[in-house]
Amino acid sequence: MRHLLGMDDLDRDRIETILERALSFAEVSRREIKKVPTLRGQTVVTLFYESSTRTSSSFELAAKRLSADVVSVKASGSAVDKGESLKDTIETLSAYDPAAIVLRHPHAGASHMLADWVDASVINAGDGMHQHPSQALLDIFTLREQIGSLEGREIWIVGDVLHSRVARSNIIGFQAMGAKVIVAGPPTLIPRGIEATGCEVRYSLDDVDSADVIYLLRMQHERMDQNFVPSIREYARLFQLNSRRLGPRQLVMHPGPVNRGVEISSDVLDCDQSLIAQQVASGLVVRMAILYELLTGSENFAAGQPDSDPVPIGEPA
Amino acid sequence: MRHLLGMDDLDRDRIETILERALSFAEVSRREIKKVPTLRGQTVVTLFYESSTRTSSSFELAAKRLSADVVSVKASGSAVDKGESLKDTIETLSAYDPAAIVLRHPHAGASHMLADWVDASVINAGDGMHQHPSQALLDIFTLREQIGSLEGREIWIVGDVLHSRVARSNIIGFQAMGAKVIVAGPPTLIPRGIEATGCEVRYSLDDVDSADVIYLLRMQHERMDQNFVPSIREYARLFQLNSRRLGPRQLVMHPGPVNRGVEISSDVLDCDQSLIAQQVASGLVVRMAILYELLTGSENFAAGQPDSDPVPIGEPA
Amino acid sequence: MRHLLGMDDLDRDRIETILERALSFAEVSRREIKKVPTLRGQTVVTLFYESSTRTSSSFELAAKRLSADVVSVKASGSAVDKGESLKDTIETLSAYDPAAIVLRHPHAGASHMLADWVDASVINAGDGMHQHPSQALLDIFTLREQIGSLEGREIWIVGDVLHSRVARSNIIGFQAMGAKVIVAGPPTLIPRGIEATGCEVRYSLDDVDSADVIYLLRMQHERMDQNFVPSIREYARLFQLNSRRLGPRQLVMHPGPVNRGVEISSDVLDCDQSLIAQQVASGLVVRMAILYELLTGSENFAAGQPDSDPVPIGEPA
Repeated sequence: MRHLLGMDDLDRDRIETILERALSFAEVSRREIKKVPTLRGQTVVTLFYESSTRTSSSFELAAKRLSADVVSVKASGSAVDKGESLKDTIETLSAYDPAAIVLRHPHAGASHMLADWVDASVINAGDGMHQHPSQALLDIFTLREQIGSLEGREIWIVGDVLHSRVARSNIIGFQAMGAKVIVAGPPTLIPRGIEATGCEVRYSLDDVDSADVIYLLRMQHERMDQNFVPSIREYARLFQLNSRRLGPRQLVMHPGPVNRGVEISSDVLDCDQSLIAQQVASGLVVRMAILYELLTGSENFAAGQPDSDPVPIGEPA
Repeated sequence: MRHLLGMDDLDRDRIETILERALSFAEVSRREIKKVPTLRGQTVVTLFYESSTRTSSSFELAAKRLSADVVSVKASGSAVDKGESLKDTIETLSAYDPAAIVLRHPHAGASHMLADWVDASVINAGDGMHQHPSQALLDIFTLREQIGSLEGREIWIVGDVLHSRVARSNIIGFQAMGAKVIVAGPPTLIPRGIEATGCEVRYSLDDVDSADVIYLLRMQHERMDQNFVPSIREYARLFQLNSRRLGPRQLVMHPGPVNRGVEISSDVLDCDQSLIAQQVASGLVVRMAILYELLTGSENFAAGQPDSDPVPIGEPA
Repeated sequence: MRHLLGMDDLDRDRIETILERALSFAEVSRREIKKVPTLRGQTVVTLFYESSTRTSSSFELAAKRLSADVVSVKASGSAVDKGESLKDTIETLSAYDPAAIVLRHPHAGASHMLADWVDASVINAGDGMHQHPSQALLDIFTLREQIGSLEGREIWIVGDVLHSRVARSNIIGFQAMGAKVIVAGPPTLIPRGIEATGCEVRYSLDDVDSADVIYLLRMQHERMDQNFVPSIREYARLFQLNSRRLGPRQLVMHPGPVNRGVEISSDVLDCDQSLIAQQVASGLVVRMAILYELLTGSENFAAGQPDSDPVPIGEPA
């Protein structure tokens, strides 16, 4: 595995390998010295064409905790010549011979183009409405920590599925781990033919009590202006997860940032069933694991069975 | 001591401990290898809701010279939902399990809120008009380097005391070290009842010749528009420190950035009695000392008597 | 040699020393651990008053690969008080006792002023229309890798010579290495009296077939509005390097970023005779070499004959 472009690149064994690795990094993160020398002297480039403190700082710190040198570029190209300026920027950054390039780009498929151009490992940190695989991996990791296995679990993904790269990646990822996925939202925000991906569709939350996990998507305010939904208030009335709708054993997830009072009520957001804080913490160790697996090569491991723990800095190998 | 939120958190012994520690870091800073491994593998987050090259770069380099990994976030939230977005941002950053979070925020009390939410040590790098304790500590450090002790010295703080977090922190800090503090400025810019903090008030510079130290505050141009003073020219006529007003043995300080020709004349700014350059240099070592004391715990030290020097990288412990 | 302000600071021996050093860093860059401990514990400040992902990231990574701590400041001062704010900013940054300050500034001579103010080594990363010496050095390095020696070669610098600091630095640098330099462009964009620098002038590309190397300058769109050239189309008709004008053994260079279809046609840009990608790769190792030579002192080396290779991290000295 050289690149991480989408969840369809990964079979269940690959996912298991990354999750195992993330588990060992979670252990490193509880030590006082939270880093390992794995990527010392190597360079990781992060190139973000959309702003994202959350994802970019998570990847940057993950690379630093692997002892890499990080070059962070926040680009903002005009809509017109994105394609060309991406190519020119990439040629410049490739000259640094980076081990990995982490790309966020508003156009679906940008990271696939990039993977054709460069020698580095490419990690898709979100490309348009297409995929966001590190989010799906951290969501799976978070759920596994909580409930052990996803096999046979029912996971509802609720909200603006149409515009969501998170939904696309998680439909694939959750199913690969054996879960049953149901997407729910207003008809205008559910892509036609999405059943072909293996999920089921609901246009209300009437039957949500059968869900083990309810995964909420961020409701973008601009969808109102674009007439995808009549109003925020109407959307919240039909699809907000609040304490009235949430059953006592259901788990709640959200990729963040959250709109309190829109897709989720404040009491549900802050309740014990919400895994949102754990999702963020998982992000760091899962991204360390992704970098580790791509850059050190999984030939060193039987799938899911690392032959050795990452060695912390300051301890003998 | 877990957090540094305001100068009222610190008694004289605590201040002495930090100053001693800063002195040993000043020695490290004169070496060729200007760093120590103290915080290796730990993470320091800087989160600035107001721009400040000076303070943010000083804290970032201080953390790097302690070998920490630094995550720098420049936030710019809308005025309305500051409270909420701060909480959400903090939850994200806390997931990295940082040893310390350095916060600058336009709202007084923001760092106190933060200290309630997180496990990390919180350092207030300026909160609204409230406090800026690292500035006060570096000012005390600078003065001590110059004149040995503040005991019995008379320090005038001149200018816009009303809006100044620097003034608030320094009134407390200078007095804790035994100095007599006098604040001076136009009545519109001196908070009513400030005498309760132990300082005296003057509304002119007529008696400034009794001062050992004259500490000038930056005069913000927007105060003119807000009618706090009739005009810059009028303000300068009454309160500018120039060579006519400055006595031969008086010392001059300013937190920067300076308005040449407004609160201070160019010749005074550049004269030998000005400690302004020394203040900036002190900032780095004092901030190293603050991070060191908060994160390694002062249980290792009798107050003011470090049991060992920080060990430089490359030398045996 | 303490500063690198312009190519006129360097004689041929100095240039050879830097190129030799860059060659050894090119070897380091092919290793898995691409860094050396040379500047460990030292601080390098980059201060950019004009945005430049390319040059700033190149210097930052060069410093990191020498194990320095990097403080990156992107400044944007108002046109009016540039001079003063530069001085104040520099005083702040100098307090960190940096080993080197890398400055890009819109005013010619800014780095010379800076060199008078500070103890640090100053590297001019572009000052107005004056000089950009690290660009010239990386261009010479790139050419030498390709053709061995510049002695007696004919190099044409084509385009907006008037506004180009790259042209100014390269005219000096190429000639110092024994090349013959010819500048070509519309009369409005060739500075009067430029022959005094030793180069020749042409106002068309009619005789460009005698060139060994054609070095194209970026054509800024704003030159149209300023009436330096009648139109982009007219400029391209007369001065664009396209496959019709390019001879089979001529080499093509460009400092980037390129305007495809203006000063250069797409097919020429992407052809084998174009050294543009190599130029970017050279930038990193040449900037490592510049920092190395300025900060470790060339007293360690007979000119052009390093007494030892840089020792990589992880190998015994």
